[in-house]
Amino acid sequence: MTRAPLRVAVLGAGTVGREVVRELLASRFAELQLVGVAVRDIGKAQADGIPEALLTDAPAHLVAGDSDVIVELMGGEEPARTLIGAALGAGKPVVTANKLVLARHGAELERVARERDSPLRFEASVMGGTPVLRLLAEDLAGTRLTALRGIVNGTTNHILTEMAASGMSYADALDAAQAAGYAEADPAADVEGGDAADKLVILARMAFGAWLDRAAVPRAEPGRAAGITGVTAEDLRAAAAGGEAIRLIASTERAPDGAIVAAVLPSKVPLESAFGRTLGVRNRLEIEADPLGTVAVEGPGAGGAATANAVLSDLVAIARGKGSTWGALPPASTADQRAPWDAE
Amino acid sequence: MTRAPLRVAVLGAGTVGREVVRELLASRFAELQLVGVAVRDIGKAQADGIPEALLTDAPAHLVAGDSDVIVELMGGEEPARTLIGAALGAGKPVVTANKLVLARHGAELERVARERDSPLRFEASVMGGTPVLRLLAEDLAGTRLTALRGIVNGTTNHILTEMAASGMSYADALDAAQAAGYAEADPAADVEGGDAADKLVILARMAFGAWLDRAAVPRAEPGRAAGITGVTAEDLRAAAAGGEAIRLIASTERAPDGAIVAAVLPSKVPLESAFGRTLGVRNRLEIEADPLGTVAVEGPGAGGAATANAVLSDLVAIARGKGSTWGALPPASTADQRAPWDAE
Repeated sequence: MTRAPLRVAVLGAGTVGREVVRELLASRFAELQLVGVAVRDIGKAQADGIPEALLTDAPAHLVAGDSDVIVELMGGEEPARTLIGAALGAGKPVVTANKLVLARHGAELERVARERDSPLRFEASVMGGTPVLRLLAEDLAGTRLTALRGIVNGTTNHILTEMAASGMSYADALDAAQAAGYAEADPAADVEGGDAADKLVILARMAFGAWLDRAAVPRAEPGRAAGITGVTAEDLRAAAAGGEAIRLIASTERAPDGAIVAAVLPSKVPLESAFGRTLGVRNRLEIEADPLGTVAVEGPGAGGAATANAVLSDLVAIARGKGSTWGALPPASTADQRAPWDAE
Repeated sequence: MTRAPLRVAVLGAGTVGREVVRELLASRFAELQLVGVAVRDIGKAQADGIPEALLTDAPAHLVAGDSDVIVELMGGEEPARTLIGAALGAGKPVVTANKLVLARHGAELERVARERDSPLRFEASVMGGTPVLRLLAEDLAGTRLTALRGIVNGTTNHILTEMAASGMSYADALDAAQAAGYAEADPAADVEGGDAADKLVILARMAFGAWLDRAAVPRAEPGRAAGITGVTAEDLRAAAAGGEAIRLIASTERAPDGAIVAAVLPSKVPLESAFGRTLGVRNRLEIEADPLGTVAVEGPGAGGAATANAVLSDLVAIARGKGSTWGALPPASTADQRAPWDAE
């Protein structure tokens, strides 16, 4: 049984993209054939070992051209959103790790994917390769999911862990994290909770069947600084004195009235709890599933090789005729959504 | 798109079987129709609310008769093994929670299932509904799994937790667990490590592609009592004084020479570690996946409703044309197998 391999076009060759390209070039996957890589800087990509014949700086041409599946790893909102939409609209399956685009345009992209029967897979977008989306959408599909609570951003957890261990200020801990490669030069998306909010929207889609409004997911209590940017060494000392740690917790649950409550907030948790003991860049997601009970999954929060592995697994799934990451779940609905402090 | 519902025959109506039958009778699943329930005591099953017209004390008749899928929840080795084999041999899919039969006859049953293209699903056999088998066989199929370590038996973990908390003897803790319904009248399979060894064999099949010889999985170090039966209150006190707890750890890994090392042993773990903090009947499995890193899954160890839910999920998967629990993994091979203390 031989089938022609799927012709794969990769958009973006950053940390994850380079790793995906390397694996495809090594021909580990008989069912996948790399036919093009779109990059901003062709010279740099050549220096990274990607053959010139595969390189282009025109991603739209790869999407419109002789490719069977698109791997979007450019990151950022545009042109990624437009390229993903164009590929799906043309009937091409898409694999992406782009949580930002999914969190803002997931409903629209899902609609196009379903209309054109073009699979959209994005396991790599949350918890860097730890397969929590498949767990929610497929493995736990027979249960009723009622709540999720997680540490889903490794950068902020690393900073909070370091601040608590050393007593250093937020600014110093951020500097150190940037120097060590744990935080980006522009850390806003991580430290202000936006990255965690993006992931929460994607997790909630899998758990509750609706795409939340990302802009309406609060990342601070009213009047407070967003994410972990207002957490001080003194806050952590005071918490520790009371047997507590501070963690950036992304949470969402179905309220009794059917609304979905969602927020990303710096939260006190017992030092001795599983969240309190989740250190550094590690992630942990707790899932309430009826009638199963509490299921928890821990994994590395990120990492180029791990994320690339998740992308390649999604590619293989597409080659094998599997559908989208939402599996057999019904089409997304719209949800009543509110912050934890809003009244019913 | 209407299809005739799958005609489901359930063998056994104990805690899990009763719950499965109840859910099927409540018609929550349009694609499933209960056509028969085999029990030992028809009068008792009627008293439990199962309609007389569905009941029989001849399970082989249900397997041979007008049924499309068999749910085996009798437990024990025979006649369960023969009935599962007969159903698969007749081309009927089977869902089972029977870890004992799978651990001893998995290779043979897999062979029949593959030859006859009859799906065999058994998610409920390990960690009572927490979907670790799907996680290993499908979600993590794109990674290279190198080691598993877990607390997979709730009864023994409950006893060890109670002994450590109260200082009571093993015999007293076992009595209390039996009185509370956490241990069976004949507790040997749990306390001697056999149940954990059964689960380890099933987990290793998913992770390493081979059915281990269950009889060659040691459940004690040479010369020691099996499972937790030799653990004393004094052992736990001494461990605690050194900052350690004792847990019954099921572990398996690929050795550098390709052999699979497997054992179920009472093991010292740091009190402050995730295993040390896994209390009562809770289960935890740690998975080493390359290049992902360490992934851990926690869940309730058992429970009738949770286990029944896993059985029903497997039934729905079969109704939707999904294959066996081993998914797209290649057929099982045979493995070199040894105990941790055996030389290469």
